[in-house]
Amino acid sequence: MQTNKNIVVKKFGGTSVGTLERIENVATRVLRDHTEKGESPVIVVSAMSGETNRLVRLANDLNPYYRGPAYDMLLASGEQVAVALLTIALEKKGAKAAPLLAHQVGIQTDAIFSKARIRSIDTTKIQALVERGVIPVVAGFQGVTEDDQITTLGRGGSDTTAVALAAALKGSACEIYTDVPAVYSADPRLVAKARELKTIAFEEMMEMASVGSKVLHFRAVEIAAKYNIKIHSRSSFEDREGTWVMAEGNMLENPVVSSVTHDPATVVIKLNPVPAGAGFLADLFGRLAEKNVVVDIITQSASEKSGKSAEGWQRLHFSIPEEDLAQTEKILHEILKAETEVTILREMAKISVIGVGMKNHPGVAARFFKIFKDHKVDVHLVTTSDIKISAVIDKSQLKEVAEALHTEFDLDA
Amino acid sequence: MQTNKNIVVKKFGGTSVGTLERIENVATRVLRDHTEKGESPVIVVSAMSGETNRLVRLANDLNPYYRGPAYDMLLASGEQVAVALLTIALEKKGAKAAPLLAHQVGIQTDAIFSKARIRSIDTTKIQALVERGVIPVVAGFQGVTEDDQITTLGRGGSDTTAVALAAALKGSACEIYTDVPAVYSADPRLVAKARELKTIAFEEMMEMASVGSKVLHFRAVEIAAKYNIKIHSRSSFEDREGTWVMAEGNMLENPVVSSVTHDPATVVIKLNPVPAGAGFLADLFGRLAEKNVVVDIITQSASEKSGKSAEGWQRLHFSIPEEDLAQTEKILHEILKAETEVTILREMAKISVIGVGMKNHPGVAARFFKIFKDHKVDVHLVTTSDIKISAVIDKSQLKEVAEALHTEFDLDA
Repeated sequence: MQTNKNIVVKKFGGTSVGTLERIENVATRVLRDHTEKGESPVIVVSAMSGETNRLVRLANDLNPYYRGPAYDMLLASGEQVAVALLTIALEKKGAKAAPLLAHQVGIQTDAIFSKARIRSIDTTKIQALVERGVIPVVAGFQGVTEDDQITTLGRGGSDTTAVALAAALKGSACEIYTDVPAVYSADPRLVAKARELKTIAFEEMMEMASVGSKVLHFRAVEIAAKYNIKIHSRSSFEDREGTWVMAEGNMLENPVVSSVTHDPATVVIKLNPVPAGAGFLADLFGRLAEKNVVVDIITQSASEKSGKSAEGWQRLHFSIPEEDLAQTEKILHEILKAETEVTILREMAKISVIGVGMKNHPGVAARFFKIFKDHKVDVHLVTTSDIKISAVIDKSQLKEVAEALHTEFDLDA
Repeated sequence: MQTNKNIVVKKFGGTSVGTLERIENVATRVLRDHTEKGESPVIVVSAMSGETNRLVRLANDLNPYYRGPAYDMLLASGEQVAVALLTIALEKKGAKAAPLLAHQVGIQTDAIFSKARIRSIDTTKIQALVERGVIPVVAGFQGVTEDDQITTLGRGGSDTTAVALAAALKGSACEIYTDVPAVYSADPRLVAKARELKTIAFEEMMEMASVGSKVLHFRAVEIAAKYNIKIHSRSSFEDREGTWVMAEGNMLENPVVSSVTHDPATVVIKLNPVPAGAGFLADLFGRLAEKNVVVDIITQSASEKSGKSAEGWQRLHFSIPEEDLAQTEKILHEILKAETEVTILREMAKISVIGVGMKNHPGVAARFFKIFKDHKVDVHLVTTSDIKISAVIDKSQLKEVAEALHTEFDLDA
């Protein structure tokens, strides 16, 4: 039996394969590691950078509301091109390589188009190729339903493909090559003093992903945590180590807060008044869920609208990703009566502090909100977990607040 | 049982789906015919115009010699995009449509990558969709091997997909929509007096396709002839009838010559001397066939090279498509000895006259060659069949000769 000792899943993101020259560099690097370290590489690739956006634009220009099998088939073509080109580049350098799409590997997902989840991966074909010395080059981001329809896993889904493959192949680590050299304590474009993290806990990384950090796909980290697959997030352009995402127990120290993260593409929707009680909420959020709109923070409170008895009515505020606004407005239009006033706050941003150390250190919330008070920043929505506090604020104040929080929690380089 | 009476396979070429606006026009037209004529459409689409060329360039920039699974996977992505977009456009207009790639339909081919041949089509899924009122939108040009690898059928292969589908669905006709309104007696860009043909025989169309006319794919016509599927080649931009390609017996009249066609991308290779006998020829043409180089006209004759006994040596001339020159030169380099002089004539063109009437009318060859003599044109290679005569000449003289032949055989509008 194959022990899988030497199998290393290596995922290359869109910028890593963004040009033919970069694709050739990836091929060179993969073959060097193969020779020098005796690795049996299994490659996962994203679409060339810009390609997915181009395809999304084509679909949206036809019909921005359509999401379904054709949309996923369209987007999946981007990874197909990258897989084919990297295979050609590897073969040119004398390697044997096999291009594999999701249906050819057997990456089974549910049928939630655009946001499908992997159910199982059949590793038979990949194992057989590796044993014959062939490098499998697998399309990230895509899957196939039971009835043979192409699905996609949502933005960043190639990370998930890679980690799920590593888990299915019973590997212990997965390399994610990207255009940034590491995971940072904050986005360096926003916070000048941001610094690289050597390690970060799965839990922290999941929170970072869920609040909008684009470094790793949420599902990827979730699967990595479940199967204890260490993720090495590193640069495809430099040779040095990046950040290891691993179980909290393996880390040397846990600062109270390990990062300040943000999501600059948030919209807040305020409805006043709406019927109180679970009936209306179930209807609204049910319809939004049906269209795969991810509602983030939700708050409700008594309505103060004059002329309506507070009894039986309430105010409802919630936030959604900017990209889901059109879909959301359509649904609101369907179910709201004239009496409900709809306020949409665009140009919002969500800012969060995250750290597994928060579990054992009280007072983080107090320090967090003091910064907003000192900087005279309105907080529109708030949410917390045991390792995270998030607030939605005006995008114009994001940079100022992010830098102040980064300093407050001793993260400055 | 389904009688398939109303199923009409409609194939839209690259220019017909070259922009989003054109894709919407295709959707409108398909749905209009569906409503007005009660047709159950089965759509076949090519890649958006320019897309296949873009993909070929990417592959060639990496490695112009590579042909194999990754190349076909790369090219097949073009049709995938077009299928998805047309499906979105149809659904936007209220229709139900299902996007289908070759592996999802079950378009089985052999494993000759880049030039695969369809072996069988499973119509179960398409029939089921049609019965439920769903419009199947099928990717042209691609197929799948027994072991689930993506293949492509060669340039123009979408025509073949459409006709093969019509045959498998037991239809009687297949509509091929393109950017030209009909099949012409000659290329109007070359011969100003070219005119549209109302009908043309399968045999004639096959000869036209085989000598380089880009109107219909050779295999498509071959399959149409075998299963007696009438092909209606027509404009996707105008509403009027185009040209019907049909069995000779159904046509009202057969002119001696129905068309003058040409292939402007021919290369002639002259080898002198090479070993006489079948051994060398089998080796050379075997290697070329292995690389899927289509050798067109071949002639051999005694060598006159001084210093070599004519005994045991000969001259060999043959023509190939311009695009296969690099591959051919590589093979020649492998097998030729220093004593063989290689002359490559570039900028050549092949010109042909075609007509089923030639079978019953002698003297066509004499009229053909008199034109060359009158216009002082050197003929490098000649070949004939019972309904065609072809000659390879300098490309610079092509237009003059084409117009003269068009007049000579009473084809002028």
